[in-house]
Amino acid sequence: MPLWKIYHPAGAFTAEDRKTLAKRVTGVYANIPIPNFYVVCIFEEVAKDSCFVGGKPHNKFVRFKIDQIARTLPGPVIREWWMSALDAAIAPFVKDRGYDWEISIDETPFDLWSLQGELPPPFESVAEKRWVKENKASSYTLTEKLPVSLVLAPGKADR
Amino acid sequence: MPLWKIYHPAGAFTAEDRKTLAKRVTGVYANIPIPNFYVVCIFEEVAKDSCFVGGKPHNKFVRFKIDQIARTLPGPVIREWWMSALDAAIAPFVKDRGYDWEISIDETPFDLWSLQGELPPPFESVAEKRWVKENKASSYTLTEKLPVSLVLAPGKADR
Amino acid sequence: MPLWKIYHPAGAFTAEDRKTLAKRVTGVYANIPIPNFYVVCIFEEVAKDSCFVGGKPHNKFVRFKIDQIARTLPGPVIREWWMSALDAAIAPFVKDRGYDWEISIDETPFDLWSLQGELPPPFESVAEKRWVKENKASSYTLTEKLPVSLVLAPGKADR
Repeated sequence: MPLWKIYHPAGAFTAEDRKTLAKRVTGVYANIPIPNFYVVCIFEEVAKDSCFVGGKPHNKFVRFKIDQIARTLPGPVIREWWMSALDAAIAPFVKDRGYDWEISIDETPFDLWSLQGELPPPFESVAEKRWVKENKASSYTLTEKLPVSLVLAPGKADR
Repeated sequence: MPLWKIYHPAGAFTAEDRKTLAKRVTGVYANIPIPNFYVVCIFEEVAKDSCFVGGKPHNKFVRFKIDQIARTLPGPVIREWWMSALDAAIAPFVKDRGYDWEISIDETPFDLWSLQGELPPPFESVAEKRWVKENKASSYTLTEKLPVSLVLAPGKADR
Repeated sequence: MPLWKIYHPAGAFTAEDRKTLAKRVTGVYANIPIPNFYVVCIFEEVAKDSCFVGGKPHNKFVRFKIDQIARTLPGPVIREWWMSALDAAIAPFVKDRGYDWEISIDETPFDLWSLQGELPPPFESVAEKRWVKENKASSYTLTEKLPVSLVLAPGKADR
């Protein structure tokens, strides 16, 4: 989470560009916060005349296809804001360079996801916080699966 | 919406084939209607012995992996019809040429999608109709987000 | 179903490796059972310095991106077990070779899927069993869409 597949024209980005763009994207997610190493960006060159928009070859088009797994964006305000935050992060590499671009995000199941053989720890759990700090996957205990801020449900009413 | 990823054996399609296939696919969606430029097709060559079906190398296999975003297909009849419409569109490039093929479609969230930094306008809105006509993304007003055929809900019953 | 996209560093796997890995993966699904030919694995080399984890280039990283269509994994126990079964299947090619790796699965709509122009037959139907045996797609009758173990609902209560 997330997996960014970036389909771009051959030669559009230098190694340095790719690194800077991946860093900017990582930065947006790191603010949530989630562990930095959750953010995977794979750049893929599309050969000339292999990308078509509206049935016509388009060799100046960058398509961002994103899977988000660790978090679901709650509610319309946050979802709209999120799209604009991502757009701002990538603007220097697409808009400012005269490329057309499109972004779409899918939200895939949290429980069908593993890293180094470990199912990632629950949302805002003690283990997740440790993963953020250590920036790598490792095994964790049942106790570490508890939320950092533990609030139990109220007891049964006595009436 | 849609994004078509077409995984095909190296050399299966000429530049002209790719263009014709992308046009045929675009035609199916243009009939909905949605803006032509919503339809993106990316062709990707799969290297020899890099595609396996049932655990065996298959070098005559074309895999269509599709994300649909702008529309959700409502109900079983339309969904079944849609699959056959797509199959007819691609038949000259797979079935008629002796390739094996498979199609799968995912429907991903409408509100996690942007084009040129713009969230696409609502289903059948004034702005969407303008996008169809102009065949490009542009900003739009609140008024343009209203449906073309505006029907308000009935008032409160007076009983 | 399933479609396995395996993004790996250039040169990570030989043709023999790819075949063995695809066979192991197919084996996990064949146990369900589903037809062997449902299992598609596409290997894709990622060019050097084109994969980033946490904003840093990572050239020893294998990313498994999976779409499952024919079956939905029911309930938390089976879902957790499934992830560990897949992890065991791939371990000799990633963990045991010093690669970092990540797996994520999406479950996409059963009714937006076709093979050789045929909508795959229903879960545990007579036709599905025939497809398992014949290991290829073919047309089927309405009767073959019935479940192998046909149990009707109870009649209306007479009270």
